[in-house]
Amino acid sequence: MRMYDIIKKKRDGGELTTEEINFFVDGYVDGSIPDYQASAFCMAVYFSGMSARETTDLTLAMAKSGDMLDLEVLGDKTVDKHSTGGVGDKVTLVVAPVAAALGCTVAKMSGRGLGHTGGTVDKLESIPGFKVELSSEEFFSQVKDIGISVIGQSDNLTPADKKLYALRDVTATVESIPLIASSIISKKLAGGSRHIVLDVTCGSGAFMKTPAAAEELAAAMVEIGKMAGRKMTAVITNMDTPLGINIGNILEVQEAVEVLKGGGPEDLRTVCVEIASLMYASCFDCTADEARPKVIEVIENGTAFEKLKAMVKAQGGDTAVLDDFSLFNKPKYTYELKSSQAGCISRMNAEAIGIASVVLGAGREKKGDPIDYKAGISLLKKTGDAVSVGDTLAVLYTDLEDKLPQAEQMILDALEFSDIKPAEETLIYKVIN
Amino acid sequence: MRMYDIIKKKRDGGELTTEEINFFVDGYVDGSIPDYQASAFCMAVYFSGMSARETTDLTLAMAKSGDMLDLEVLGDKTVDKHSTGGVGDKVTLVVAPVAAALGCTVAKMSGRGLGHTGGTVDKLESIPGFKVELSSEEFFSQVKDIGISVIGQSDNLTPADKKLYALRDVTATVESIPLIASSIISKKLAGGSRHIVLDVTCGSGAFMKTPAAAEELAAAMVEIGKMAGRKMTAVITNMDTPLGINIGNILEVQEAVEVLKGGGPEDLRTVCVEIASLMYASCFDCTADEARPKVIEVIENGTAFEKLKAMVKAQGGDTAVLDDFSLFNKPKYTYELKSSQAGCISRMNAEAIGIASVVLGAGREKKGDPIDYKAGISLLKKTGDAVSVGDTLAVLYTDLEDKLPQAEQMILDALEFSDIKPAEETLIYKVIN
Repeated sequence: MRMYDIIKKKRDGGELTTEEINFFVDGYVDGSIPDYQASAFCMAVYFSGMSARETTDLTLAMAKSGDMLDLEVLGDKTVDKHSTGGVGDKVTLVVAPVAAALGCTVAKMSGRGLGHTGGTVDKLESIPGFKVELSSEEFFSQVKDIGISVIGQSDNLTPADKKLYALRDVTATVESIPLIASSIISKKLAGGSRHIVLDVTCGSGAFMKTPAAAEELAAAMVEIGKMAGRKMTAVITNMDTPLGINIGNILEVQEAVEVLKGGGPEDLRTVCVEIASLMYASCFDCTADEARPKVIEVIENGTAFEKLKAMVKAQGGDTAVLDDFSLFNKPKYTYELKSSQAGCISRMNAEAIGIASVVLGAGREKKGDPIDYKAGISLLKKTGDAVSVGDTLAVLYTDLEDKLPQAEQMILDALEFSDIKPAEETLIYKVIN
Repeated sequence: MRMYDIIKKKRDGGELTTEEINFFVDGYVDGSIPDYQASAFCMAVYFSGMSARETTDLTLAMAKSGDMLDLEVLGDKTVDKHSTGGVGDKVTLVVAPVAAALGCTVAKMSGRGLGHTGGTVDKLESIPGFKVELSSEEFFSQVKDIGISVIGQSDNLTPADKKLYALRDVTATVESIPLIASSIISKKLAGGSRHIVLDVTCGSGAFMKTPAAAEELAAAMVEIGKMAGRKMTAVITNMDTPLGINIGNILEVQEAVEVLKGGGPEDLRTVCVEIASLMYASCFDCTADEARPKVIEVIENGTAFEKLKAMVKAQGGDTAVLDDFSLFNKPKYTYELKSSQAGCISRMNAEAIGIASVVLGAGREKKGDPIDYKAGISLLKKTGDAVSVGDTLAVLYTDLEDKLPQAEQMILDALEFSDIKPAEETLIYKVIN
């Protein structure tokens, strides 16, 4: 078998065999297939596509390239949740404890943030003392004990995907449905949960800009996850506006806690209830409508928040900060961005606002950059809100005073004003399973 | 400027600017752009194509990446000829001296053979003593003196094309009209001749398998050559059957000499007369019909053959072998391949026959392999010929007795027999200028 022939076959629209796909993935990981053949292959896939069977094979091959968690011992209600990324997306911090409070088993690996989107692991680490690296024994023991643990991804998780994604990132071959779908699902398969709920975001702050594009990706991921034997659910959600009010690690933990205490911004609360309901519905084989009252119940009676505190405690974190936000470290500078114009906010560029939060120190431009957990933005006015001259549009938090003017300008550029109030945004477009 | 953006723009069907194309070629040659980006770019070009303007820019950038011959001092009748490759293609050995005998200036660099196609430089080197490496002074002085010199390509000829072609060869990105056209024409532009005649072959022994595909390539090459300021002519010729009877270096020199002496196989003679006429017509601004009698005249009166001998002598070769073929070295084994079946040859796979000649030692599988100039095949029966049981189909020449069975089988497999004589093949499909 020769990589040349595999590239040519895909280039010419052929369907690759399982053996050919395994040959590529194995050879790319062991270095016998060079980057220049892999990148030509990815571009051929970009143009020629892949069948569901090919995509599933690619996904399985990448999943098997590294460690695969076996969660069988934890029963049949293990559930994972994945978001394709957004700005202010702290949904996992809410739905993981909610699902665990309802009897689902949450034994989950999460990622770090990059670029304009944050990562759950960074947010958890903003809680003083919280450890995201547990030994396998600690992880399983904690999940058996309290039904929940969220940890960082192991170094040897899907090395094939890691290597291929880095290559795609510099060769303009990221935007391919089969390649995106296999990248995401390979990590979920390696994560080992039986039930997988995908939050496929769309809009200005998401990777997929339209509901149609998000639906195509969601359908592909659901199909390959099913072919690989998992129970799959995907929900298409709106990420045209940042989710909730807060962007930045400590700020987002606080907002998630507010939702778990029965408050918080309405958009965030709605999305969290929906996704938690889908997680429960998958595990307990009922409808989302049947699941929803149970979700609301564990939020209102406090058991979901107690579950979050139990996890934080089990992983060495300080739970006191969750009850009293004033115990969190404070940024050096708090700056109120006032509006110089009046009108109604008709549109926000969520990605640009996410990048502004990175400028303030809340995120990283490249892997390994340090993060300031205290930094971020609170968006006091969002799409649809009326604004008068002098109103505070946003509060900026940072230790980097010199970055404030740049971040301020970025946020102002990201807002569009209009005389008329825009139509209410759809928050949840569709559920696919 | 970033290579990532250039790949993405081409992937999305955009037209690259001259600056973007120069950035790619310069960066790829100096190593700042890695192979994996170049291969993704080539695959994007394969799918998205290139406009004539982009292809011309790519061609010029590659031509300028190395030495450019300036032939201005040799006048306005410098003419180059290029074949896209074939089996038994010894046309240059005939048309170069014919054109020179008619007053055209032939200051030409030629390539070596690879795979199933031979190269003019190898054929010339099969003449004892013939030097294909001349100093620039020797080259210009010889052309001024006798109007003709054919030498090997300089080491620094179009290094961008050399590097890119090697990459395309292993990433399934060879078969792209703009990439093929720019590869060929960049070398011709660097070669410096004002008039360029392209023999674009098609059929089983050629790179382009159909006349339509060959015409598309020819039209692209003519267009970019013109945009680069050269006078261009292309002729589409048939390479479904090897040209002439002989395949192999010494064998082909002998057959070319036969044509220059007014004999030789009819198909070879027809193609040579046509191409030499187009070379003359371009230089002297007349029609091919007006040029044809002049071409035939210098063949029949022996001045073209004298021109070949003058070139061979000037470049240190032994002209005696051209008058007396028995002075050439002889192969150890001469094997007559007899037919075990009767009928009419309805089809020949020219490429397979070319590969059989490589097996016998006449060509190289990879760059740098040694060649046995004596080895080769004489095809005594060709498409359209009637064959009786026991007739000699071909004579095989080699020093490698153990390779004879394999070559014999390859030739037999390459022949198709039929009860009915096939329609006469078109030899020259079209002229484009």
